[in-house]
Amino acid sequence: MTVSYTLEVANVRFGGFTKLLLRWRGSIYRLLYKDLLVFCGVYLFFSLFYRFLLTPKQQDLFERVALYCDQFTNTNFIPVLFVLGFYVTLAFNRWWGQYTSFPLPDNLMMVVSGNVHGADETGRLLRRTLMRYANLSSVLILRSISTRFSLNFFFQHFNCVQLFFILLCENLKMFESLHSDFNKYWMPLTWFSNLASRAREEGRVRDDIALRLLMDELNNYRAKCSLLFHYDWITIPLVYTQVVTIAVYSFFAFCVIGRQFLNPEKGYKDHKLDLYVPVFTLLQFFFYTGWLKVTQHTHASLVETDFILIM
Amino acid sequence: MTVSYTLEVANVRFGGFTKLLLRWRGSIYRLLYKDLLVFCGVYLFFSLFYRFLLTPKQQDLFERVALYCDQFTNTNFIPVLFVLGFYVTLAFNRWWGQYTSFPLPDNLMMVVSGNVHGADETGRLLRRTLMRYANLSSVLILRSISTRFSLNFFFQHFNCVQLFFILLCENLKMFESLHSDFNKYWMPLTWFSNLASRAREEGRVRDDIALRLLMDELNNYRAKCSLLFHYDWITIPLVYTQVVTIAVYSFFAFCVIGRQFLNPEKGYKDHKLDLYVPVFTLLQFFFYTGWLKVTQHTHASLVETDFILIM
Amino acid sequence: MTVSYTLEVANVRFGGFTKLLLRWRGSIYRLLYKDLLVFCGVYLFFSLFYRFLLTPKQQDLFERVALYCDQFTNTNFIPVLFVLGFYVTLAFNRWWGQYTSFPLPDNLMMVVSGNVHGADETGRLLRRTLMRYANLSSVLILRSISTRFSLNFFFQHFNCVQLFFILLCENLKMFESLHSDFNKYWMPLTWFSNLASRAREEGRVRDDIALRLLMDELNNYRAKCSLLFHYDWITIPLVYTQVVTIAVYSFFAFCVIGRQFLNPEKGYKDHKLDLYVPVFTLLQFFFYTGWLKVTQHTHASLVETDFILIM
Amino acid sequence: MTVSYTLEVANVRFGGFTKLLLRWRGSIYRLLYKDLLVFCGVYLFFSLFYRFLLTPKQQDLFERVALYCDQFTNTNFIPVLFVLGFYVTLAFNRWWGQYTSFPLPDNLMMVVSGNVHGADETGRLLRRTLMRYANLSSVLILRSISTRFSLNFFFQHFNCVQLFFILLCENLKMFESLHSDFNKYWMPLTWFSNLASRAREEGRVRDDIALRLLMDELNNYRAKCSLLFHYDWITIPLVYTQVVTIAVYSFFAFCVIGRQFLNPEKGYKDHKLDLYVPVFTLLQFFFYTGWLKVTQHTHASLVETDFILIM
Amino acid sequence: MTVSYTLEVANVRFGGFTKLLLRWRGSIYRLLYKDLLVFCGVYLFFSLFYRFLLTPKQQDLFERVALYCDQFTNTNFIPVLFVLGFYVTLAFNRWWGQYTSFPLPDNLMMVVSGNVHGADETGRLLRRTLMRYANLSSVLILRSISTRFSLNFFFQHFNCVQLFFILLCENLKMFESLHSDFNKYWMPLTWFSNLASRAREEGRVRDDIALRLLMDELNNYRAKCSLLFHYDWITIPLVYTQVVTIAVYSFFAFCVIGRQFLNPEKGYKDHKLDLYVPVFTLLQFFFYTGWLKVTQHTHASLVETDFILIM
Repeated sequence: MTVSYTLEVANVRFGGFTKLLLRWRGSIYRLLYKDLLVFCGVYLFFSLFYRFLLTPKQQDLFERVALYCDQFTNTNFIPVLFVLGFYVTLAFNRWWGQYTSFPLPDNLMMVVSGNVHGADETGRLLRRTLMRYANLSSVLILRSISTRFSLNFFFQHFNCVQLFFILLCENLKMFESLHSDFNKYWMPLTWFSNLASRAREEGRVRDDIALRLLMDELNNYRAKCSLLFHYDWITIPLVYTQVVTIAVYSFFAFCVIGRQFLNPEKGYKDHKLDLYVPVFTLLQFFFYTGWLKVTQHTHASLVETDFILIM
Repeated sequence: MTVSYTLEVANVRFGGFTKLLLRWRGSIYRLLYKDLLVFCGVYLFFSLFYRFLLTPKQQDLFERVALYCDQFTNTNFIPVLFVLGFYVTLAFNRWWGQYTSFPLPDNLMMVVSGNVHGADETGRLLRRTLMRYANLSSVLILRSISTRFSLNFFFQHFNCVQLFFILLCENLKMFESLHSDFNKYWMPLTWFSNLASRAREEGRVRDDIALRLLMDELNNYRAKCSLLFHYDWITIPLVYTQVVTIAVYSFFAFCVIGRQFLNPEKGYKDHKLDLYVPVFTLLQFFFYTGWLKVTQHTHASLVETDFILIM
Repeated sequence: MTVSYTLEVANVRFGGFTKLLLRWRGSIYRLLYKDLLVFCGVYLFFSLFYRFLLTPKQQDLFERVALYCDQFTNTNFIPVLFVLGFYVTLAFNRWWGQYTSFPLPDNLMMVVSGNVHGADETGRLLRRTLMRYANLSSVLILRSISTRFSLNFFFQHFNCVQLFFILLCENLKMFESLHSDFNKYWMPLTWFSNLASRAREEGRVRDDIALRLLMDELNNYRAKCSLLFHYDWITIPLVYTQVVTIAVYSFFAFCVIGRQFLNPEKGYKDHKLDLYVPVFTLLQFFFYTGWLKVTQHTHASLVETDFILIM
Repeated sequence: MTVSYTLEVANVRFGGFTKLLLRWRGSIYRLLYKDLLVFCGVYLFFSLFYRFLLTPKQQDLFERVALYCDQFTNTNFIPVLFVLGFYVTLAFNRWWGQYTSFPLPDNLMMVVSGNVHGADETGRLLRRTLMRYANLSSVLILRSISTRFSLNFFFQHFNCVQLFFILLCENLKMFESLHSDFNKYWMPLTWFSNLASRAREEGRVRDDIALRLLMDELNNYRAKCSLLFHYDWITIPLVYTQVVTIAVYSFFAFCVIGRQFLNPEKGYKDHKLDLYVPVFTLLQFFFYTGWLKVTQHTHASLVETDFILIM
Repeated sequence: MTVSYTLEVANVRFGGFTKLLLRWRGSIYRLLYKDLLVFCGVYLFFSLFYRFLLTPKQQDLFERVALYCDQFTNTNFIPVLFVLGFYVTLAFNRWWGQYTSFPLPDNLMMVVSGNVHGADETGRLLRRTLMRYANLSSVLILRSISTRFSLNFFFQHFNCVQLFFILLCENLKMFESLHSDFNKYWMPLTWFSNLASRAREEGRVRDDIALRLLMDELNNYRAKCSLLFHYDWITIPLVYTQVVTIAVYSFFAFCVIGRQFLNPEKGYKDHKLDLYVPVFTLLQFFFYTGWLKVTQHTHASLVETDFILIM
């Protein structure tokens, strides 16, 4: 979730990032701690295995395997940084793209309130119905793209959505009667268009230029809904996701063996110290897995954002 | 093909990517397994050749050649990562560009339904014919850019396309009478334009602003068709494709020799263990060839997408 | 803060960047000197600790720890450059994006002055009130995004803002009566829209095309306000900030030990000279921490810019 | 030249890229073979020189020079990859930018055919003359940006261009009478604008909205001509081209000496094998020079494209 | 300055870049030769100092310092490539951005000539005055962003600018009477807007759609002026410039010592040859400093371009 922390950054004096680094909500620690525990457990297992269970001869073999693994994890054999960088950039751009294509009803609302005239009850109802159609459309889109929305939120807030339907019960039947494999988010927008045309005929929209303005804004709104729908429909190709996930996890699978502290007395190169805890490997795990988790994070962030907007 | 897996990602809890990694359809394994088998076969051949067929003296020579090859595959001599990164970014951007330039008839449809009036049969036919022209245009474009479309799909669904032509048989003659080396996708759009003008004269399009709106949307639609056509016509220059393919394949051609496990008893540096299976080289093959295959994949993905939309 | 130095660069002859490098205001030295002092202090502490307080045996252990740390800070174990590069690019793009989405009232002003007619006092007041609404809207946005603005500036200049409110006291009540968790920057723009409609009815805006022009410009202005608001609301995900901060600071935490000058007499590799001052590590600190500080800097720069525009 | 190979890629089954790799037309081999021959010649010369002409003492000196050169070509001393990557990206973006800014007359044509009425001869001539002005403008642009166009094509097809002028002979005098240091591509567009205004006065363009539509499309067309002209006028700064060319060529100048196979019997590090043919250096030459040649290639590709469009 | 060399590139046959590489005007040699001379001088000084002035013991110390420096300049300690790459990309994008936001009067001119009617003297004067206002505005912008313009050009061509003022002397007073800390480039555009409104009232602009077209083009023109002004006002933050300059110059400061040829007889690693001239270091200096100089170059290029356009 996108937790706002701008204010805290801006107030920060020397050393003041500390507080930010220790936050739990929306932080990297929350995303990572389970994976980190598993990694530590497996590393510990191999460490004990090597130190206490193996015969000297088996230790010797283990050491050669470890050196072999270490040799490849230190170099660029597994191009983790490369594929990770590509993937993270991709995911971030999609996230920002999705965000900026969010169909905000503000502009449409302003145009409706300025061009659909009539201070009487009918006029008010007309304006409100138009905006309801627009909101219904974005609710339908959000319900489709956001899993939290569709799972938890759906059941809790169904009444509120139903409320919409009740007001528009003649539309509801129409809506349900059309069966489509795809999201029907565009239907309320068609209703909007028809209602606006009727309002023009009744003279509540005074001239063609105003109607055109309404239609232009509707088209913009619709284009954003459509883009959001397609962002959801067309994901990053599975191939990319598989390559990057396998790269990161296979890298750390080999690290579990290759980064063991070997017996310093045997005098292997770069193995002169037995620290028991592989500090740098844990840091690497932290950075690489952290960046990988970013995709799930950015996906989740949209869900949260939606939530706020619906309220 | 772009297989939707968003839902699965979003529901994922700890360790839950596993299922995603094991999918076959649309996965990297399906793209790669044939190449991987060939690579393993050749590697195995050289391995047996070195171990059993060579005399000690020949083995010595082989070892020196292997060390020489290894030396260059470990460093940046063949800039595989560099050219691959450039190429993959290019291919991905084109794929997304093509996708977003897909001529969706939604906006056009909405404008037609809102501005071409008449509840009678003629009015309905008029609106339907306009949209048919638009759809025909995108069918013509898709048939040209998508090979699966043009090979398999063409024969199966020709009748459906012919159906269009039957309805518009006077146009069909016109269409066939014009010989052009290029795609004639723009012809139906010209018919659309003429028909809309006639509708304006008959008063079915009520004013000039509405006609202009129709024309603007038609232009947008046409611009997207045109962009898609050009994406197909102007490919990534052949030079780039050749450089990247040769880089990757020559890299692995040298790996087949350079990554052989040499006799540990001879004490060559970094050759103290004989694992028989070159785990890291296979991983490298997996990553590099996998990213290269992405271009074919992204091309194929458009084809599938088209298919769905036509249905 | 963005200090203009174009003129100085342009006049520069050979060697003339020197003056620019020595500037304090808006410079990197001002951003960094505190962190640099702390780093030097800790480095000095460990240096003295190693040289004078440890027994020879403890020194030996310290040396091995230092060599171990050094080994990892020299390689790519902590991918500082990678995450830093990604983060800096992100922050810079946001900064420039924010800057270009700044709601400049120029275009709106020109349209108002050209299309709202009337040389009498009422006409002048009408035009001035319209522009005041627009300015009030951007003041509200700026007060929300800029901390310096909201803390210092707010109290000093409240009267000036109040002045606006006094002129529009009937609006003020309306403004305060609406409670919202979000920024109410859009309210003055709604007033603008209503006032423009009234002006059209009174004939001060002569035709619908002129009104449409006004509305189009208002929409552009509003879109920029909205974008700026969202740039502020949706920050770079906290995860990215945490990863990059931890990467940089943990890197230098290990440098403090790993880059100590070890006793040259013990003949450790690459430790043949005791310079006391780790020149290159300080340079590294300067570059890496400097680029990290850039985010704070770019944030601050917007604040300053705002300040100038308000005046 | 941009040779279409999409169809071949799409039909490709396992191993099927082979055919594509062996193509000559539009391929990298055609671009490179002359440079490669020169490089091989020089390498061969030094190889023979070292092996047969030098005294043992001179050989010793040569070996030390070779080792010195080798040391620097193996590391990042000459940042070939870096400058090459930057330059190639730049050149590719310009190429695609130029391509998409190509002034296609389609949209303009459609607007002219839909809005300039009159089925009589004058009407037809009017529409044809308008489009001729537009085409003339792009011919003038293309003649200026494309050298093949201006050298070969110009003389062969001058009559065809003259044909235009004959039809518009009163304009021709005007065109020639105006002397300008810059391309006069904008003149036919001015004639277009004037002719469209006259058509409006004569009632052949029925209303102001249609005229505005014509003018908008003309502006788009003109903007693309202008962009293309500026892409040609403002090249990638010479500094970049010089740096990248010198980087690549100096790199290979040093390789010619540094990558010689030294006498294996002297036991130099990494010189245990005498292959006579420096396989990897040739591959490097192939990749680096290949990417550099891409700029010339992409430039040429535009020329070819133009050619097709003119026909 | 942006020297056009497209023609020469296009005509180039094998080996033909040579001529381009040897050009002086607008070349990298002209930008660099002074810095290169200084670098060589300092290097020579240290070389002589080491060879002739030091006692053997001092030489020993110098050698150790040199080896220490060399060790860090060979690795990535000073991330020159990284910061340089970021900075160069930034500068290039700004340069191209500035170039494309150049306020070309073409479109405005075409709209004025097509919509402001009247073949009499007053009509001609009206059109000319409108364009003069527009040109004056861009002259004011250019005088502010281009130093050469403001220093040399200003005095030589003041009369030409004054000529404008003389024609518009009543405006001149108004212009001078308004005191502003900022560029007053927007004032002539306001006059343009007012004059266009008056022309509409006098019937010289025939309808509101034409007036709106004029205003739209004026707004585009103004937006470009504004963008150019802001490109000039908001420079690349000083912090970036300082970091990159210090990185490059400190790198070469250490190279001056670290790249000295040490006595080959002492058997230091990689110091087996005394070439006196550090060929590779000079090449590095050439590349790195060359890319850094690009910012100054791209800045200057805009100035030249302006010059041509004003003429």
